[in-house]
Amino acid sequence: MYSKFSGWDDTIAAIATPPGVGAIGVIRLSGDRSYDIVQALFPSKDLKLQPANTLLVGFLKEGDQVLDEVVISFFRKPASYTGEDVIEISCHGSSYVQQQVLDALIRNGARLAKAGEFTQRAFLNKKLDLIQAEAVGDLIASNTSASQKAALNNMRGGFSNVLHELREELIKFSSLIELELDFSEEDVEFADRNKFLVLIENIDNTVNRLLESFKLGNVIKNGVSVAIVGKPNAGKSTLLNTLLNENRAIVSEIAGTTRDTIEEVININGILFRLIDTAGIREHSQDIIENMGVVKSKEKIKQADIVLYVFDINEMDEEELTIIVNEIREQNPNVIIVANKTDTYNQPVNDRFHSGIFISAREEVGIKELKDQLFQAATGVGMQTENVIITNTRHYAALMEISKSLKEIKGGLKNDISGDLLAPDIRRALHYLGEITGEVTNEDRLDYIFSKFCIGK
Amino acid sequence: MYSKFSGWDDTIAAIATPPGVGAIGVIRLSGDRSYDIVQALFPSKDLKLQPANTLLVGFLKEGDQVLDEVVISFFRKPASYTGEDVIEISCHGSSYVQQQVLDALIRNGARLAKAGEFTQRAFLNKKLDLIQAEAVGDLIASNTSASQKAALNNMRGGFSNVLHELREELIKFSSLIELELDFSEEDVEFADRNKFLVLIENIDNTVNRLLESFKLGNVIKNGVSVAIVGKPNAGKSTLLNTLLNENRAIVSEIAGTTRDTIEEVININGILFRLIDTAGIREHSQDIIENMGVVKSKEKIKQADIVLYVFDINEMDEEELTIIVNEIREQNPNVIIVANKTDTYNQPVNDRFHSGIFISAREEVGIKELKDQLFQAATGVGMQTENVIITNTRHYAALMEISKSLKEIKGGLKNDISGDLLAPDIRRALHYLGEITGEVTNEDRLDYIFSKFCIGK
Repeated sequence: MYSKFSGWDDTIAAIATPPGVGAIGVIRLSGDRSYDIVQALFPSKDLKLQPANTLLVGFLKEGDQVLDEVVISFFRKPASYTGEDVIEISCHGSSYVQQQVLDALIRNGARLAKAGEFTQRAFLNKKLDLIQAEAVGDLIASNTSASQKAALNNMRGGFSNVLHELREELIKFSSLIELELDFSEEDVEFADRNKFLVLIENIDNTVNRLLESFKLGNVIKNGVSVAIVGKPNAGKSTLLNTLLNENRAIVSEIAGTTRDTIEEVININGILFRLIDTAGIREHSQDIIENMGVVKSKEKIKQADIVLYVFDINEMDEEELTIIVNEIREQNPNVIIVANKTDTYNQPVNDRFHSGIFISAREEVGIKELKDQLFQAATGVGMQTENVIITNTRHYAALMEISKSLKEIKGGLKNDISGDLLAPDIRRALHYLGEITGEVTNEDRLDYIFSKFCIGK
Repeated sequence: MYSKFSGWDDTIAAIATPPGVGAIGVIRLSGDRSYDIVQALFPSKDLKLQPANTLLVGFLKEGDQVLDEVVISFFRKPASYTGEDVIEISCHGSSYVQQQVLDALIRNGARLAKAGEFTQRAFLNKKLDLIQAEAVGDLIASNTSASQKAALNNMRGGFSNVLHELREELIKFSSLIELELDFSEEDVEFADRNKFLVLIENIDNTVNRLLESFKLGNVIKNGVSVAIVGKPNAGKSTLLNTLLNENRAIVSEIAGTTRDTIEEVININGILFRLIDTAGIREHSQDIIENMGVVKSKEKIKQADIVLYVFDINEMDEEELTIIVNEIREQNPNVIIVANKTDTYNQPVNDRFHSGIFISAREEVGIKELKDQLFQAATGVGMQTENVIITNTRHYAALMEISKSLKEIKGGLKNDISGDLLAPDIRRALHYLGEITGEVTNEDRLDYIFSKFCIGK
């Protein structure tokens, strides 16, 4: 099936460490010729005699020219990351030196690896299924404890195991149904329809649980956008600064993170909250929610996952608040109402307003409650990352197809339709289950999936 | 001598690969507790049984929490980079994951390494002398073939060997002179003054050769600044673009490279040429060499290593050219005269001007000659990087001190002064020789030298 994959039999090489200058850089090779290619640059030892999983220190030379003093790691197929002969060369971390070493490997017969090609080979050689391979990419892109945990869980086979179980059981019944088709003129039923309905409902429950987890998975993977809106002088900037001072996230540069739209990022319990368009809030706050209208901030409110509506408790009454909040809710139902400046308010706060969180951004009162509420609004009731969580849109789309097929099967079983009419939907469900794990796939789709990886992985 | 170095007996850890996201990141540990600290995070194997120079794959765990699936490289003292027990952990290249692993190591007893501390330990454990240690830093900062070669040559002991030889010979004579001091009342001469003079002159020759190489060394390490000046419409921009299109250098970001002053960089035969302030030349060219005067560009001409004076061959005569070039030479003697636009000039060019290079920037005629002349002007007659080349200001300063002492000794020998008067200068020369290689040094100076390294090296 995979034999037609172009260039799968050549030896690939790439710089595997981040671009730039560091103490060391690592160049990775995988393929049948890895040892021969490195041997050409390392004449001082016979690499054929080098045992697997060992290290060698020495000078890399091309002809008379010394390239660098390096440490070489040796891995032998099939006990390597890709399942092929793998060599990693750890050289001095000058960009120039790294490039020189890579160029020399390519001159000696290696091909520059495409993005994700090492992991793609690991998948093709059945070292990983597709879910695990995708989790490698997610792990590299992870920037919070939650995204790290979810990726590690998938990498270790958590999600794969759930799907394999479902698929095994479905295959058992499917083969009985298919058997019925062979005897279709005799009107026999090998598959117990009642047991089958129970199984389908069990599978459907699991699929629904997984689909539901995607909301959280998406939050874990992509973070949550929060629009802070409110009248001028409501204390939005102070609140922003208070949130940032305590929890500013260190976010590494990830492809697709556009600095234009994401202004500030904070990390609450391992989830990233992007406080969007805060520059606008700071500088043009006059335009926002002016005259109780929500004109210019409409788009921002619509696009945000959560809206924080901040007001000065001294300058607001219940009636006006209700009008404003209703107006915001028309654009976005996820509104958290924040009554600010409680430090300057002398009456009991609960007497005046019936909902919302009472804070003093300046005095840092109520901030923990606000963060708890943000976290809850983002994750639902809470977060159990021990459970399998869908973080991948591709998996979500396939699960939706499976869910559709399961509903068809259930309807069919309840209406007592015959096996030949059930069979296409069962096959369809099996197809999509296999597509998630990579048991069913095609070259173009794989190339697309791995092209989103970084080079060298 | 080194026992007082603070914190030399603890175990250090740092991320050794460049900052940012890549396929993998490497975290390095060195010190007596390296194995114990990693053992705490790797319960699945007994690391005491792990042979040196081998690799292990597995999950790094802190308590129940999985940190990452990693490859661990094991090195045992004294056969390691630092001369101590060294472990390198290759983890997934998310910044977040790398930081998590490093944090876990530190929680378990490692100390965050200071810049250059691994190499400093290698020096203190006599795995490298100071020249070699500094060459490691130079190699990491290298961005051309010439700087890579010079650093590798020093790292492999080229310069160290030259100095060790000089020092050995000087020590031999020195001990004879010191012996004379013990017998000073008997007026004996153990050291043959004629042989000593020959030796000192040999050493002086070598030191002078090394001092002279610093000009080239500086060019190799820091590149050459070139000011392109000339009247408006002389074709400076076209020339700049022609040079850039062919040879634009890929310069990695190096500490100290200020983007403000360096506009464009080209690489000619492994030497970087910085075409300085070209934006100014492009935009404000009217101001430059106007009315045959060199007013606003004076500073630029003064500061550049080389000045390219470009003129339109159709718009210039020998007399005017002489006046302008003399004016420039008052500011900077390194002027290359470039007669441009030969493609629009119908007479034999040599008839009209007696010096300079004749080019057509637009038609790319004469560009190779111009680059050859730039390279020659920068490097002297040429460049033999096989020879030892001084690239380090610290080494240059010490060699200057040695040269002074040698001159004193020579003068003393010629005037037949006694051993007790020669001895201080000999000791001084020996001191500075030892200071270059690190045989004589002190903690503060070492800390300063290694602080210029990157973290993790």
